[in-house]
Amino acid sequence: MNPKYLRAPAAALMIMSALPVFAGWQALPEVAPAPADNPTTDAKVTLGKMLFMDPRFSSTGTISCNSCHNVMEGGDDSRTFSMGVHGKIGGRNAPTVWNSAFHSVQFWDGRADLLEDQAKGPVTNPVEMGVSEIEQAMDKVRAIPGYKPYFDEAFGKDAMTVDNAAKAVASFERTLITPNSPYDKYVKGDKKAMSAEQVRGMETFAASGCTSCHSGAAFNGPTMEFGQGFYTKFPTFADNEFNKKYDLSADKGREEATGKAADAHMFRVTTLRNITDTAPYFHNGSVNDLSEAVRLMAKTQLNKDLSDKDVQDIVAFLGALTGEYPEIVMPRLPATSGYSLIAD
Amino acid sequence: MNPKYLRAPAAALMIMSALPVFAGWQALPEVAPAPADNPTTDAKVTLGKMLFMDPRFSSTGTISCNSCHNVMEGGDDSRTFSMGVHGKIGGRNAPTVWNSAFHSVQFWDGRADLLEDQAKGPVTNPVEMGVSEIEQAMDKVRAIPGYKPYFDEAFGKDAMTVDNAAKAVASFERTLITPNSPYDKYVKGDKKAMSAEQVRGMETFAASGCTSCHSGAAFNGPTMEFGQGFYTKFPTFADNEFNKKYDLSADKGREEATGKAADAHMFRVTTLRNITDTAPYFHNGSVNDLSEAVRLMAKTQLNKDLSDKDVQDIVAFLGALTGEYPEIVMPRLPATSGYSLIAD
Repeated sequence: MNPKYLRAPAAALMIMSALPVFAGWQALPEVAPAPADNPTTDAKVTLGKMLFMDPRFSSTGTISCNSCHNVMEGGDDSRTFSMGVHGKIGGRNAPTVWNSAFHSVQFWDGRADLLEDQAKGPVTNPVEMGVSEIEQAMDKVRAIPGYKPYFDEAFGKDAMTVDNAAKAVASFERTLITPNSPYDKYVKGDKKAMSAEQVRGMETFAASGCTSCHSGAAFNGPTMEFGQGFYTKFPTFADNEFNKKYDLSADKGREEATGKAADAHMFRVTTLRNITDTAPYFHNGSVNDLSEAVRLMAKTQLNKDLSDKDVQDIVAFLGALTGEYPEIVMPRLPATSGYSLIAD
Repeated sequence: MNPKYLRAPAAALMIMSALPVFAGWQALPEVAPAPADNPTTDAKVTLGKMLFMDPRFSSTGTISCNSCHNVMEGGDDSRTFSMGVHGKIGGRNAPTVWNSAFHSVQFWDGRADLLEDQAKGPVTNPVEMGVSEIEQAMDKVRAIPGYKPYFDEAFGKDAMTVDNAAKAVASFERTLITPNSPYDKYVKGDKKAMSAEQVRGMETFAASGCTSCHSGAAFNGPTMEFGQGFYTKFPTFADNEFNKKYDLSADKGREEATGKAADAHMFRVTTLRNITDTAPYFHNGSVNDLSEAVRLMAKTQLNKDLSDKDVQDIVAFLGALTGEYPEIVMPRLPATSGYSLIAD
């Protein structure tokens, strides 16, 4: 079976057979995998951080990667849908950039294999950075004299290309890891790191079947090669009040990227790391309460009605997945001298 | 004479009498003055940095102080006019926040005496943060549980007020100082810190009369008490091609704040520190070339036509006013847990 098309029901069957004891608990690695052609280096991370924070190559000069994936917050923007250039509104909730390196495909529908590919998308999205052609954005980067030495250092001569800019951004993103959550400490042996309620929630989380999709160190499924995604149908059980109330089926998910009916309503299983910091929830950002999100998932994915106590315990457990955000020093964005690239 | 109404022509006369040798060169202080009721403390600076970077209390959750006064850049946004909520456009160029603590009045028209007053303005400006009533923004801050300990630490109990939030932001802004420019080193005795061209430019700058307004450590006029502004009429000489081309007289300046005809076209004399990093220039952001800005100022303020060489030398000198930007660690913005304040 091609693991790219491994789908939640199959995974569920495999893992359900191991219940009631779920043995797959894993701490978050402190280093993220990188593709063979873009090993992470300090020079790339330094440059990538600058590019990630720089709004000047958006069409209005106002939107950077960090505008919607704010690393000072949960790696997102707290909004249902993001607001890009000219106040335009997107169509899906901004996923967190924290620990995004542990996803084997990017975007809700997995349409990018790598962070390197993902990084280019928002630049030319008319409701995000709004640049017509990505080379126009790169022309602005090339027109900022102070960037050249950073590209030289990271990639050698004649290095100011879109691909290298994307590689640098991806390298920076691979450093956005939040280890040492209470859960990580617990898994490593510190049994006092989680409260009794959180431990109960952890057991309920596994026993209810949540781990059939949300397994692995990042709670986003089994470790897979880059480009091989772990998808699930959402909602799997569609005939319920939650789906009506939150209009979950309106978005065709991966079908909108592939055009294949078999991909209808398929979404990447997303990380649960730091989920307390990333409300509102789901691809359409429609649920602004983590308890409701848990209740909804049990119903739409497992066809279960959880008790209030089980929901409360699971929410407490999910709180134990919030890790330590590393300190980030603001980059100095290289200046233009005596003129602006943004002014008309 | 009330120093609040000391105007450039008077100042010019006083200082012109001291030519040809201008003796007023001063290095930038490394500590900024603070009002008696808001001494700068580490706790206020820590809180103020968080509030300065936090977009969540704007009406859309997308605009922070840093959006238009980006400390990763020249303390501004490189735009002619800033872009606020819903892509709305302002009417004046965003002044730099770097060294703003050395201004005795705030905004182009001096309508705020203190940084504490200024900090409140953009929150309720419909084209900036777009909140109807400032208490609504403060309600959002109060609804973020993690902010309370920082207010407690900075201001004591029951401290989550608009006034204290503004005091904290002002305290942070008073740390945004860029010392050790080549000019500062030169003034302190390192005669190799500036190039021969820059030294020539410095002499031409004084001899041409620029120092009649742009004097003092921040090149924004004499040191004055908070609330007492140093204003100049801009343009002073209006009948020239520059005024026609850049429509400088369209904005009534301080008259729009006071309603007094005597304040027509009066603007605060603004700092020249880091001016190479703050294009485009002037209240209307109409000039996107520092050489042109120098030529324009000579004509509109001194009725002089500078030679190309003099312009080039002065621009080189202005480049020597770009100082060292201190390292800023990104704050962690206190999270809400399992819900968002921004989502509908």
